Amino acid sequence: MQRFYKLIQIALIALPLLAMRQDKPLKVIFFGDSITQAGVGPTGYITKMTEMLKANGKSAQYELAGAGIGGNKVYDLYLRLEDDVLSKKPDVVFIYVGINDVWHKTSHGTGTDADKYVKFYDALIRKMKAQNIRVIVCTPTVIGERNDNSNAQDGDLNYYSKLIRDIATKNNVQVCDLRKAFGDYLLKNNPENKEKGILTSDRVHLTDDGNKFLAERMMEALVQK
Amino acid sequence: MQRFYKLIQIALIALPLLAMRQDKPLKVIFFGDSITQAGVGPTGYITKMTEMLKANGKSAQYELAGAGIGGNKVYDLYLRLEDDVLSKKPDVVFIYVGINDVWHKTSHGTGTDADKYVKFYDALIRKMKAQNIRVIVCTPTVIGERNDNSNAQDGDLNYYSKLIRDIATKNNVQVCDLRKAFGDYLLKNNPENKEKGILTSDRVHLTDDGNKFLAERMMEALVQK
Amino acid sequence: MQRFYKLIQIALIALPLLAMRQDKPLKVIFFGDSITQAGVGPTGYITKMTEMLKANGKSAQYELAGAGIGGNKVYDLYLRLEDDVLSKKPDVVFIYVGINDVWHKTSHGTGTDADKYVKFYDALIRKMKAQNIRVIVCTPTVIGERNDNSNAQDGDLNYYSKLIRDIATKNNVQVCDLRKAFGDYLLKNNPENKEKGILTSDRVHLTDDGNKFLAERMMEALVQK
Amino acid sequence: MQRFYKLIQIALIALPLLAMRQDKPLKVIFFGDSITQAGVGPTGYITKMTEMLKANGKSAQYELAGAGIGGNKVYDLYLRLEDDVLSKKPDVVFIYVGINDVWHKTSHGTGTDADKYVKFYDALIRKMKAQNIRVIVCTPTVIGERNDNSNAQDGDLNYYSKLIRDIATKNNVQVCDLRKAFGDYLLKNNPENKEKGILTSDRVHLTDDGNKFLAERMMEALVQK
Repeated sequence: MQRFYKLIQIALIALPLLAMRQDKPLKVIFFGDSITQAGVGPTGYITKMTEMLKANGKSAQYELAGAGIGGNKVYDLYLRLEDDVLSKKPDVVFIYVGINDVWHKTSHGTGTDADKYVKFYDALIRKMKAQNIRVIVCTPTVIGERNDNSNAQDGDLNYYSKLIRDIATKNNVQVCDLRKAFGDYLLKNNPENKEKGILTSDRVHLTDDGNKFLAERMMEALVQK
Repeated sequence: MQRFYKLIQIALIALPLLAMRQDKPLKVIFFGDSITQAGVGPTGYITKMTEMLKANGKSAQYELAGAGIGGNKVYDLYLRLEDDVLSKKPDVVFIYVGINDVWHKTSHGTGTDADKYVKFYDALIRKMKAQNIRVIVCTPTVIGERNDNSNAQDGDLNYYSKLIRDIATKNNVQVCDLRKAFGDYLLKNNPENKEKGILTSDRVHLTDDGNKFLAERMMEALVQK
Repeated sequence: MQRFYKLIQIALIALPLLAMRQDKPLKVIFFGDSITQAGVGPTGYITKMTEMLKANGKSAQYELAGAGIGGNKVYDLYLRLEDDVLSKKPDVVFIYVGINDVWHKTSHGTGTDADKYVKFYDALIRKMKAQNIRVIVCTPTVIGERNDNSNAQDGDLNYYSKLIRDIATKNNVQVCDLRKAFGDYLLKNNPENKEKGILTSDRVHLTDDGNKFLAERMMEALVQK
Repeated sequence: MQRFYKLIQIALIALPLLAMRQDKPLKVIFFGDSITQAGVGPTGYITKMTEMLKANGKSAQYELAGAGIGGNKVYDLYLRLEDDVLSKKPDVVFIYVGINDVWHKTSHGTGTDADKYVKFYDALIRKMKAQNIRVIVCTPTVIGERNDNSNAQDGDLNYYSKLIRDIATKNNVQVCDLRKAFGDYLLKNNPENKEKGILTSDRVHLTDDGNKFLAERMMEALVQK
């Protein structure tokens, strides 16, 4: 009889765990701009991640979805947060935004001030955490691939990356430090210090190599912990 | 005795009606930028409106409150909509925003694209209307007082004003056409075609005359209908 | 004695040549940006002016040449003034620059401040007048064809046009008021208030109608006085 | 024969004059923006250089003059090159310009495109070299003192510095690499990674320490070779 109770006890403890393991794949949303919009294309980074999972027999465990719209800045994500993310009930959300916030300052006069960037970013995280979503924040990749901090927006991209790392610490969420990863890669693999053609086709949007490299970094972040 | 009950009955029915009529003033919130932030100062337009109501013995009917923050653009209003407006349960809200959306394009590289301006404006109205708030949208006043469309941002301000009028039509809300009112006033009262010093002290922020003129236009819009 | 006849002979031959020298065509240079660069193309405004002269049997009296380079602002003209204009010894120069000075403020962050615009413009005129060139200054045409001052750069274009008119008065040179001419035309001929497609194909560069309209305005200015 | 003696006589008189010519102080002009305009102030870098020369008993050998005007970009220097530099017949000219060319992109929308920057810079050097002036080109110092390439304009400043080094090589003129010097100093002396307060008071304009540091770098470049 005691045994029986013991078994019941174990079952009661184990059941939820089993349920958590088996019942439904982890729903992951990538929330971002044109790079993420292209991420679900035939050679996009999200497509590549799905292929990686398949190759490793883990297709059933993850369901990856893109929520990227070209030209989006942090406040655009905030405007469509409910419709495009919260209502989908994801388990994990990657926030990958910032390039347009910096770039549009000179290209359109409509970038995002650093203090506003932080406010909206904090608000995004707060609303996601309120729904128990695991948030992974990404530092912005590149606008220009020169590896000696001589691309016009490097200063601002480095600064916004620091802001994102601070936001992560403050909100206790995980960082996927894409800017550092891209920088390290370009130091080694861009000996001619070219502006584009390594990981990007046009200084911003990704080549096949770029999508592959991004997919690997995202996957590392996803399976971490 | 029956009469007494009858009276009580009537009173019980009438009281809530009376209460509805009398007990609480119409709560009006002015939602905007630095001009509205200054609007609650000693010579600000909201203060002047409160004084106008008092002078006309209508103090009990209206409760005016400012919700202006310097440097705010349309998306900043959206970010603090819940905290600064919806949670206060206002009856009427004036939305008066757009100057920074246009101005910051060249002064900081962080203005607001026209299409994004419309999207956030629509979202503001939608959320207010869902709470049965009477919304009054204001066209932006001026950045420079020259009266011949030769202030640097006149083209953009005229365009954003048209967008606001279209937004009003589409959403069936009232317009307080400040840009037109200021323009008409300056045609008559700025014979030297000066950049500032008539309704503004610095091309944007209001002089005492400017606050008075604005208070009158706002009051007309408020009591209309 | 034979020598004397020889001299007479030479004189008789030379006389018509001298006459021709006096009759030599008036050399006109159009100094500007991409619109002027396209002006010498098959349907460009300078080509059309040459055709107009031919049709009127005045080909021999004028020699028109373009000196336009895409993206040029007033200071770019100043940098190449010696090489592209003064060294060619023109009789007349049209200066037609200003669109990029205004436009690039938001599109690239590299427009020209109004005070600098005036300084370089004055310097251009001063150097041309020192060489006895007849200078005709043109106000900038359009960036967007809406006819109600609601194109984003209308305020600035109107302002820079006023500056040019003031420069002309101050330096006692002729004005070809293209901005006014285009504005008047669009008021009559753009009933739907479209952004482009009337005189321009893309808000700035000219359609065939635009080149024809511009050629007529330039011709009027050239033959005036 | 008498003619020959006459020539010898003239030579003997001329020799001391030639000697005097060599002994006359080296005329040095600093050609730049607001930092150079402030350079001739009581604590400015040019004033400090003059004091350094006096302390070393070399006052007679150098005559230092400032030609800085606030807000100047490379093309502003070109416009006033004749009046403010060439007409003064200097022996040496330091060109120190670039901060506003980069900064004004976002602060006013009126910075200078990189290709135009190079064109005007080349033209400055060409005209100076035609007058046998020894030209020393300076890379721009800082807009923000953070030492990890996270000041907004660091990317652009690094890039324009590379352009200046290339211009120097191409034109065979000396470089005073202020950007590198300031960067190295800030790596050691700005442990808190502050935005200002080390060498600058406001991210751009120099503190007393900044002027002293700049004076030393300029002096090293001047006495070099």
